Amino acid sequence: METWDAIRARRNVRAYSDRPINQPDLERILRAGWLAPSASNRQHRDFVVSSDRDQLGQLAEVWQGARHVATSAATVVVVIPASTGARDRELDQFDAGQAVMAMMIAASDLGIGSGHASVGDQARARRILGLPEDQECAYMVAFGYPADRPLAPLTKPNRRPFAEVVHWAKW
Amino acid sequence: METWDAIRARRNVRAYSDRPINQPDLERILRAGWLAPSASNRQHRDFVVSSDRDQLGQLAEVWQGARHVATSAATVVVVIPASTGARDRELDQFDAGQAVMAMMIAASDLGIGSGHASVGDQARARRILGLPEDQECAYMVAFGYPADRPLAPLTKPNRRPFAEVVHWAKW
Repeated sequence: METWDAIRARRNVRAYSDRPINQPDLERILRAGWLAPSASNRQHRDFVVSSDRDQLGQLAEVWQGARHVATSAATVVVVIPASTGARDRELDQFDAGQAVMAMMIAASDLGIGSGHASVGDQARARRILGLPEDQECAYMVAFGYPADRPLAPLTKPNRRPFAEVVHWAKW
Repeated sequence: METWDAIRARRNVRAYSDRPINQPDLERILRAGWLAPSASNRQHRDFVVSSDRDQLGQLAEVWQGARHVATSAATVVVVIPASTGARDRELDQFDAGQAVMAMMIAASDLGIGSGHASVGDQARARRILGLPEDQECAYMVAFGYPADRPLAPLTKPNRRPFAEVVHWAKW
């Protein structure tokens, strides 16, 4: 798909069909995240991929807004160091956001929807995934083919007006 | 360009040709950032766009690693609320990262390179851009056509091994 179409077709998808994501497509999505840049190329992020129904069901319980994870075809947990420095944490979150966006655009290109989920209960997520204590979950991203309408470029995105968000030269 | 090619062709570009970015292309890049998702769709981000040579020169001095901004065709400053809550700041940084990645992929699709720059001197950046006190610069992204080789899918990305970054089901 053309890049501009994939970017415009990405939307928040939380209801998935039963269709699995084949392994080459899942790896392509992960590679997009792997290629994303990071501060000083420090690459403070790992991806734990779950496509096991039982494990997905457990992950769906680490936050009230994560229920869609249970029915996803696969969910990627973005893991960053459990750093205590505020500036380090902000850089790692920024970089995690870059990786997640790249994965979602790569998925959109394949017709695969995506939906974020926060991680509220870090201790529980650590147990489910076997994470060491010095790592934490920044975000989960659930992937799957949409249960309803296929992805297509959005015509009326729910955003603040473009002319309000973009400032030319001065605020 | 195909999405997967645009994702793989993005690289850190800090030396730019004199070729300007035309207005429709610059707006497409900004729209990609505008469309990026955010926590609860709160859209805590604004974009200030600079393509004035004098202003770019001033922006290049807000951080030691921002010199490439001076010679960019255009630089987008991603602005977020100057929030004091740690969790709010992390969410806004994550969302800023998503917007920046979308802009860089949209640029890559057009053959336009991109290079991040931090903002060290927030007070100075605020003066240059006319930002209110309750806003701060999360990051700058410089855009321009590469001075050297055109963008093309990378064959040897400088990353930790894919098999080390990606964990299947368990850490």
